[in-house]
Amino acid sequence: MDFAERRSSDLATWNLATAIRALAMDAVQAANSGHPGMPMGMADVATVLFRDHLKFDAAAPNWFDRDRFILSAGHGSMLLYSLLHLTGYEQMTLDQLRNFRQLGSITAGHPEYRHAEGVEMTTGPLGQGFATAVGFAIAEEKMRAEFGADLCDHRTWVISGDGCLMEGISQEALTLAGRLRLGKLIVLWDDNKITIDGRVALSDATDQKARFEASGWRVLECDGHDPADIATALNKAIKDDGRPVLVDCRTFIGYGASKQDTSGVHGSPLGAEEIVKVRGAYGWEHPDFVVPDDLREAWLQIGAKGRSAREAWNARVDALPADQRTAFARRVSGETSDALAPAIAAVKAKALADKPKLATRKASEMVLEAVNAAIPETVGGSADLTGSNNTLTPDLGIFNDQNRHGRYIYYGIREHGMAAAMNGITLHGGYRAYGGTFLCFADYMRPSMRLAALMGVPSVFVMTHDSIGLGEDGPTHQPVEHLAMLRATPNTWTFRPADLVETAEAWQLALTTDTTPSILALSRQNLPLVRQDDGAENLTARGAYVLREASAAPRVVLMSSGSEVEIALAARETLEAEGVPTRVVSIPCMELFRTQDAEYRREVLPAGTVRIAIEAALRMPWDWLLLGEGGAEAKSGFIGMDGFGASAPAPELYKHFGITADETVKLARSLM
Amino acid sequence: MDFAERRSSDLATWNLATAIRALAMDAVQAANSGHPGMPMGMADVATVLFRDHLKFDAAAPNWFDRDRFILSAGHGSMLLYSLLHLTGYEQMTLDQLRNFRQLGSITAGHPEYRHAEGVEMTTGPLGQGFATAVGFAIAEEKMRAEFGADLCDHRTWVISGDGCLMEGISQEALTLAGRLRLGKLIVLWDDNKITIDGRVALSDATDQKARFEASGWRVLECDGHDPADIATALNKAIKDDGRPVLVDCRTFIGYGASKQDTSGVHGSPLGAEEIVKVRGAYGWEHPDFVVPDDLREAWLQIGAKGRSAREAWNARVDALPADQRTAFARRVSGETSDALAPAIAAVKAKALADKPKLATRKASEMVLEAVNAAIPETVGGSADLTGSNNTLTPDLGIFNDQNRHGRYIYYGIREHGMAAAMNGITLHGGYRAYGGTFLCFADYMRPSMRLAALMGVPSVFVMTHDSIGLGEDGPTHQPVEHLAMLRATPNTWTFRPADLVETAEAWQLALTTDTTPSILALSRQNLPLVRQDDGAENLTARGAYVLREASAAPRVVLMSSGSEVEIALAARETLEAEGVPTRVVSIPCMELFRTQDAEYRREVLPAGTVRIAIEAALRMPWDWLLLGEGGAEAKSGFIGMDGFGASAPAPELYKHFGITADETVKLARSLM
Repeated sequence: MDFAERRSSDLATWNLATAIRALAMDAVQAANSGHPGMPMGMADVATVLFRDHLKFDAAAPNWFDRDRFILSAGHGSMLLYSLLHLTGYEQMTLDQLRNFRQLGSITAGHPEYRHAEGVEMTTGPLGQGFATAVGFAIAEEKMRAEFGADLCDHRTWVISGDGCLMEGISQEALTLAGRLRLGKLIVLWDDNKITIDGRVALSDATDQKARFEASGWRVLECDGHDPADIATALNKAIKDDGRPVLVDCRTFIGYGASKQDTSGVHGSPLGAEEIVKVRGAYGWEHPDFVVPDDLREAWLQIGAKGRSAREAWNARVDALPADQRTAFARRVSGETSDALAPAIAAVKAKALADKPKLATRKASEMVLEAVNAAIPETVGGSADLTGSNNTLTPDLGIFNDQNRHGRYIYYGIREHGMAAAMNGITLHGGYRAYGGTFLCFADYMRPSMRLAALMGVPSVFVMTHDSIGLGEDGPTHQPVEHLAMLRATPNTWTFRPADLVETAEAWQLALTTDTTPSILALSRQNLPLVRQDDGAENLTARGAYVLREASAAPRVVLMSSGSEVEIALAARETLEAEGVPTRVVSIPCMELFRTQDAEYRREVLPAGTVRIAIEAALRMPWDWLLLGEGGAEAKSGFIGMDGFGASAPAPELYKHFGITADETVKLARSLM
Repeated sequence: MDFAERRSSDLATWNLATAIRALAMDAVQAANSGHPGMPMGMADVATVLFRDHLKFDAAAPNWFDRDRFILSAGHGSMLLYSLLHLTGYEQMTLDQLRNFRQLGSITAGHPEYRHAEGVEMTTGPLGQGFATAVGFAIAEEKMRAEFGADLCDHRTWVISGDGCLMEGISQEALTLAGRLRLGKLIVLWDDNKITIDGRVALSDATDQKARFEASGWRVLECDGHDPADIATALNKAIKDDGRPVLVDCRTFIGYGASKQDTSGVHGSPLGAEEIVKVRGAYGWEHPDFVVPDDLREAWLQIGAKGRSAREAWNARVDALPADQRTAFARRVSGETSDALAPAIAAVKAKALADKPKLATRKASEMVLEAVNAAIPETVGGSADLTGSNNTLTPDLGIFNDQNRHGRYIYYGIREHGMAAAMNGITLHGGYRAYGGTFLCFADYMRPSMRLAALMGVPSVFVMTHDSIGLGEDGPTHQPVEHLAMLRATPNTWTFRPADLVETAEAWQLALTTDTTPSILALSRQNLPLVRQDDGAENLTARGAYVLREASAAPRVVLMSSGSEVEIALAARETLEAEGVPTRVVSIPCMELFRTQDAEYRREVLPAGTVRIAIEAALRMPWDWLLLGEGGAEAKSGFIGMDGFGASAPAPELYKHFGITADETVKLARSLM
C-alpha cells in the first residue's frame, strides 16, 4: 500500500496517528532539536496499542494496576509526550509540548522519570528501557502471585529500536526474560532498518527473530503502518502462553518525509518547509500544534477508556478485609515495613553482645536473614555469585517460572541485566530489589547504576570482595578506582561498613530511602567488631563519626572505612602508647557526611591535627577530607593504593602495598 | 564412553591431557586457591588444539604470524600456564607453576598481559577475551590484505565458558564478527552446563547454537573428551568459509573428580585426599608437579612443531625488498610512523595562523584528516555516531567483508564490543585503533577501558559531547562524574583539550605511547583558539601549563580544561581590568601534570594565590589542585557541576548551573 491508500483504508486511525506525527514534527521544529523520525515511524503502532490494549486511565496516572508502557528508544520522546498530551494527562499541556527540550519544562529531550506523570522510567541510554522492563514484568508476576489477579494483572509494553537490540544489555535482558517465562512482557520492535550511521546492514546481519526464539520468546510481526495488521499482531501478543513476546513492527523511519527511510530524519528537525510538505502528504490541514476538536475528543476517550476498569479495581481493593487492604496499600505505597527497625536493632544488639569477627559480606547475610524474615518486600539476587555475595537467605525461595512466590533471582552472569531488572522491580512498586556481584564488576552495570541515581530509585547493590582483600584473583577482580567512581556519582550512597553494626545500619538506610540507590561495599576477609557504643543511634547515618576518642586533645586523626578501620585502630594503639593522642574516625558513607552541618563536621574532624586516611583504594575521594574541611591547617597523608593491585594472598598484598598499622604509624610520626 | 574406556581408547592423547589436569590440580592445591574445574574439563580440547592446529613456536613467543590463543574463561588460567610450561615457554618454569597466585610470580590468578609470554591478553572479567578476540581477527584480516598471506595468515582461537556467553558483551562481539565475516575466528565453547550458582538451566534456557547461527556463525560440535571427535570438529573449523566458527565442546567440569559436573569443583582446591583419588582414576602415578620424561618430550615436540613454519616465514620476510621489509617490520614493532610528528606540527601551525573557532570534536577530525593521510596504522571507528564523533576521514575506506583494506569500522550500537575490539586490534599488532562515542557512554565500555589500562594497551577513545554543552539531549547524555571516573583509573590519560592546538597535541601523545590508553574528551560546541605561543613545544605533554600570564605577580590563578578554558580567559579579562593580576592555567591532562617534577608544578601553581578551578563536571578530581599543591595557603573555589545536568540549549545550561565568567569573577572577588 502506498501512502494515500493507507490513509483512505482507515481514515479514523490514520488521523489519530497523524496527530502524534504532527505534534512530534512541530515540537522538534520549535525546539530546533530532537528526533522526529521515530515518532513518525511508530505512531501507527502506538495508536493501535493505546486505543485497543493499553490499560490506563489518564486521570489516574499512578493507578497501580495500569499497564506499563516503556519507551526504550527514549530519543523518540515526542511519541510519548504526544500520547500523554492527547490522552489527557493533566500535566502534559500543549505549552509543555511547545517547550520541548527547554529548561524547566517536563518535556526533556529524553523522557525523565519524576518529570512527568506517565513516564514510567528515564530512557535514552539504549537498551535500558528494555532491560528495566524485565524487572517491571518480574514484579507484576510476583505481585499477582502474592495478592491475586484481582489486584494485579497487567502487561509491560516496550517500544524498542534497533539500537536497543544491538546493545549487549538486550541479550542479558531477553535471555533472563525467556528463562523466567515472563509472558506478559511484550516488546514492540521498531524495525525500520536504519541507525545513525546508515542502514542497519552496515553493522549488523542478525536475524533478530531467530535470536529471540533461541531464548524462548514468541515472535510475531506486522506491517507497522497498517492498523489492521497491527491489531491482529497485538491481539495475538496479549495471549500469554508463558513466552515473552517480540513483535517485529516493520516501519519506515520518518514516515512521509522526503528523507523517509534514511538516518537524515533520525535526529534533527525536518525544517519548516519540509513540514508543510509532509502535512500535505498526510492530508493534515491544521496549523502547528493544532489538533482538531473531533480528534481531541477521540483521543480523550482513549485516555478515559480504562476508567471503568480502574473503578472496578478500586472496588475490589475496598472490598478487601481491612488487614489485607492495609498490607496491600503499604506495599503499593513503597513505604518500608515498620518491622525493619526492630529487626535491625536486634541484629545490632546481638552483634554488640557477641562481638563476632566476620567478613562484612557475611555480616550482610546475617542482616538479610533478619530483614528478609521480618519484611516481605525485599527481592534478592546475584549475578551468579550467590555463595560469594551471601545474598540468599533461607526464607526467600527461588523466583522462577515454577514459583512466582520466590523472592530470590538467579540472575546468571548478567550484571548489567540484573541492575536494570532491579531498577524495574523497585520502580514497578510492591518490592525493593537488591542484588550482588563483586565490587569490581560495578563496571559491567555502570549504565544502570547511573540510571538508578538519575531516577532516584533505591536499588541496593551488594558489592562484595571490595578491595585487594580479595586476594589471589588478582587485579582484574580488585577494585581500586571504583569507590572514587561511585562516590563521584550524584545521588548515590556508597556505604563501606567496618563491621556488623555498621553493615546493619547501612542496610537500614538503604531500605528506607525512597530516592537514592545504595552500594554496600563489603569485605571478603574477616573483620573484628569495632563498635563499642550502645548502638542506639544509627551512626552510619552521620556518614562519619568518632569511633575511638583520643586519650587527650587529638594530635592525630585517623580516618578510615571498611576493612581498613581495623588498621586505624591498631595504629592508634601504638601511637597512644607512644603518647600521641589519636582519634579514629570511621567513615562508612562520605556522601552522608558531606550533608552534615559544618559544626558536626568540625567536631569530627577538628582543625590543626595531623590527618591520615587509610583505605585500600585510590586517594581521590579523600582529598577533600585530607586537605579541605580544615585539614589544610596541618599535615596530612594517605595510606592506600596508587595503582592496580596484584595476585597474592590478601595479607601479603596489604603488606606489599604498605597498607598496615606500622606504615600508618610511620607516616603519622613523619607528619608530626 | 566411561572414564576408563576413554583412557584406553587413545592413551597417548589421554596422557598429554592428563599432564595438564594434574598440573592444574597441583598448582591450585599448592596455592590453596584457584579454579581446577575448567582446566580439567577443557584439557582434552586444548591438547588436540595445540597438537594438531595451533601455529606457534614456544621458542619465539612473539612471532608475528603465530595463531593467537585467548583464554576468555580466564579463571582457568592453569590450563594456559600448564600448556605454556609443557610446550617449553622459557619463562614458564615449574617454579612458576608452584608459585601460582603468589606475589611476584608470573602465574597470576587470572592471566595477566605482560606478565608471561604466551599470554596474549589479560582475561578474567567474563566476555572480554571473546570480544577482544574479534579485534585480533580484524587486525589479522587487515594485515593479510595489506601485506599478503605470505606474511600474515593465522587464526584466532578462543576458549569461552558459559559465563562469557551470558555476558551482554558476547552478543556485541558475535554480531560484529558475524557481520564482518571473520572466518578465521574460532571460538571453543566449554559447554559444561555449570555456573557458580549451579546448573546453567537455573538462569538460562538459550539455544546457543541457534543464537550464533542467527548472526551468521557456523556452528560445530564435539564430545569435548573424545580426541577423535575433537579432531574432526577442529578439522572442519579451520576451513574458512567466511563465517566465524563456534565449536560446542560438550565437557564435564572437573572431569574425573568426585564433584565432577557441579559448581563445587569450579573455584576451590580439590583437597589433597581427593587429588590422590583423581590421580588414581586418571591412571596418573606421578607425584605432585612431576611429568614423566616421555610426556615432557612429547609436549616439547608440540611446542617446537611450528619452528619450520616460522623459519619459512622468516625467510619470506628476509626475501622482501628492503623498503617493504622495513615497512613491515615497523608495523609489527608497533613503533609510530615518523610521519606523525610533521603531520601534527602542520596542523598546529595552520591552527595558530588561522585561529579557527570550532568544536574540539571537529578539531579532532581535522587532526585525524592529517594523521590518517600521513600514517597507515590507524584504524578508526564509531559506535554508530560517526557524524557526531567526527571520526571518519576521507582516506580511510570502510572495513567490511567486501573490503579488508578499509580502515574504518562501523561498530554499530555496541560501545562495549567496540572498546574490546579496539584493544584486540592494537594488541594483535600492526595497527593502532581509535573509536568514538559520547563521553557519557564511557559507562557502557568501562570494563574494556579498564582492561586497556591494566594491560597497558594504547587504545584511543574519542569521547565527544563531553559535558552539559551537549545541551538538549539532557542528563542521560551529559557526563558529570565521568571525568572523575576516568581520571581515577590508573594508567589512563584523560585529555580534555581546549582548542585545536591542544587537540593535536593530545592526539600526538595518544598515538605515540605504547603503554597507556587515552581518552579524548571533546566538545560538541564551538570554542575559540586559545593558544598564542609558537606551538613548538607539546605543552599538553606537561599536563598543565600557563596559558595566559598575569600582568604582574598573580593574585588569582584560574585553572580549567576543555570548553571552560574560554570562560577562564574571559574572567581573567575582567579581573585584570579590575586590577587583579590573574593567571590562566590550562590543564588538558591532570594525569600528566601529576608526573611533572615538583618545581614545575610549583611554577605553574604558585602558593599563596587564590585558586579557582572551572570545569563543567564534578569537583572531586580537582581537590588536589585546589587544596593541595600549595593551594592550602590561600583560598580556593570551584565553578562546575554538583549534580546531574538538565535538558536545555547549552548556553542556558551554562548560565543555569553558574558556569560563567561572571560567576567566576564573583567567586574570585569573594575569595580575595
